Amino acid sequence: MSKIRVAVVGYGNIGRYVVEALSVAPDFEIAGIVRRSVANIPREIANYKVVTNIDELGKVDVAILSTPTREVEKHAAELLAKGINTVDSFDIHTQIPALRKSLNAIAKANGTKAVIAAGWDPGSDSVVRTLMQAAAPKGVTYTNFGPGMSMGHSVAVRSKAGVKDALSMTIPLGTGIHRRMVYVELEEGASLDEVTKAIKADPYFASDETHVMQVASVDEVRDMGHGVHMERKGVSGITQNQRFEFSMSINNPALTAQILVGVARATTRLAPGAYTMIEVPVVDLLPGDRDQWVARLV
Amino acid sequence: MSKIRVAVVGYGNIGRYVVEALSVAPDFEIAGIVRRSVANIPREIANYKVVTNIDELGKVDVAILSTPTREVEKHAAELLAKGINTVDSFDIHTQIPALRKSLNAIAKANGTKAVIAAGWDPGSDSVVRTLMQAAAPKGVTYTNFGPGMSMGHSVAVRSKAGVKDALSMTIPLGTGIHRRMVYVELEEGASLDEVTKAIKADPYFASDETHVMQVASVDEVRDMGHGVHMERKGVSGITQNQRFEFSMSINNPALTAQILVGVARATTRLAPGAYTMIEVPVVDLLPGDRDQWVARLV
Repeated sequence: MSKIRVAVVGYGNIGRYVVEALSVAPDFEIAGIVRRSVANIPREIANYKVVTNIDELGKVDVAILSTPTREVEKHAAELLAKGINTVDSFDIHTQIPALRKSLNAIAKANGTKAVIAAGWDPGSDSVVRTLMQAAAPKGVTYTNFGPGMSMGHSVAVRSKAGVKDALSMTIPLGTGIHRRMVYVELEEGASLDEVTKAIKADPYFASDETHVMQVASVDEVRDMGHGVHMERKGVSGITQNQRFEFSMSINNPALTAQILVGVARATTRLAPGAYTMIEVPVVDLLPGDRDQWVARLV
Repeated sequence: MSKIRVAVVGYGNIGRYVVEALSVAPDFEIAGIVRRSVANIPREIANYKVVTNIDELGKVDVAILSTPTREVEKHAAELLAKGINTVDSFDIHTQIPALRKSLNAIAKANGTKAVIAAGWDPGSDSVVRTLMQAAAPKGVTYTNFGPGMSMGHSVAVRSKAGVKDALSMTIPLGTGIHRRMVYVELEEGASLDEVTKAIKADPYFASDETHVMQVASVDEVRDMGHGVHMERKGVSGITQNQRFEFSMSINNPALTAQILVGVARATTRLAPGAYTMIEVPVVDLLPGDRDQWVARLV
């Protein structure tokens, strides 16, 4: 069976883990890695083709976008129009429907496929939330994140005057309520009081219990572990008190990358268009034909 | 929007809960209930059409099979050939691939769709197992059942000489190991020792820790609650120790019925053929169009 030729677009934190996951996947061949510059190629990818333009990689079936979330749409639109399927871990929940609509039109017009918002949340958590909703249509699902680092919140803190580096940890308090533990490295002469006020006034933090602590080195408290605990209590038919829980404790970029590799595989089996993970049969995340998995997993 | 016309085939324990779930579903219309006899119609379905032949119900889009597992194939084959989609909760794991193959051929030949083995295990648990496999391709998933009644084991005990009624409870001991707690009501003069020996020699019990206890009334210990705890520890890419857990505590027939209603809905959106739940996009278990669920759940 011929392998799926894949390009990795962007080589930051997620990109590194994507290359690792592809290197142990049985059905992929890495066509190459697309970066903004080919200077300073990290040693671990020295054996792969690294280019600035995907056209230099020959035939590419699917591109895994490991770029910042805000660049996803631009890259995906361009690649889908070129005849290359795309997958991404776009993570701004409120903007997912718009991205899906815009990429769906481009994909359909070009006979290509996109799976968007594929990581763990949005992503595999979305699949579990949907399954819980189907199992008990009435009820509430709580998604409790953490403990783990929030990229979005950390970036928001880093933008404050006087902050040299920052890390915001999300601590789950249950029923979807979270505490924010913020570790800041301050610039010479900056005031912790002022920085704390600025953080607590930021919309990212305003509605959550937030604690700001000064540390000598943010790097020393950084850990890429993360977790989630989802719970639903609801009604199946007219039967009350059906209870469901899903939880995980994971290396964040490693899981995101593994899911991206799964949906990259799924693009080869979908009809043209753009999809979120809840629209993709879960078996299509797995390699080889469906029959073996039906026998093993159903 | 026109409603999906559904027939409920078989009205035992599952059938009752299926009718309840349909009665609160926004997009279904119960065409009627098919039973072996129309004598002694239970009061709660007095307002529905009850027939012995599905042809008497007019147009039917999908039939929910609530018959014993061993009768599923016969009914499904007949209905699929008639132009009616089917869903079932066939639960003999080892025979699922063969059932899927046989119904797939009939469905494709007749332009109909079947979703088989749809309940919670096989069923929604299979979806979670598949998702966990995709999230961490190397590793072991343990499915721990219970505490709850096992239908198959209870039936096996009831077949022993001297047993008037029986209930076998499954108790999870972790890592997929289970204890069997068997409650028996004996016939006049039967020996508990003999019955215990017969049960422990049965292949259903031979490899599990089994305790047999005599009770005055099995009915008094019967409870339809059940549960499951699934756990996977595995590798995403080359990152070890990724941990996932799913658990639930549920009314067993109520959940099975709700899932059957979801896949009955999904049959209206699938291409002709037979599917297990891991082959069906989870969003298609939910009513209405996909867009609203993408915005709410992804």
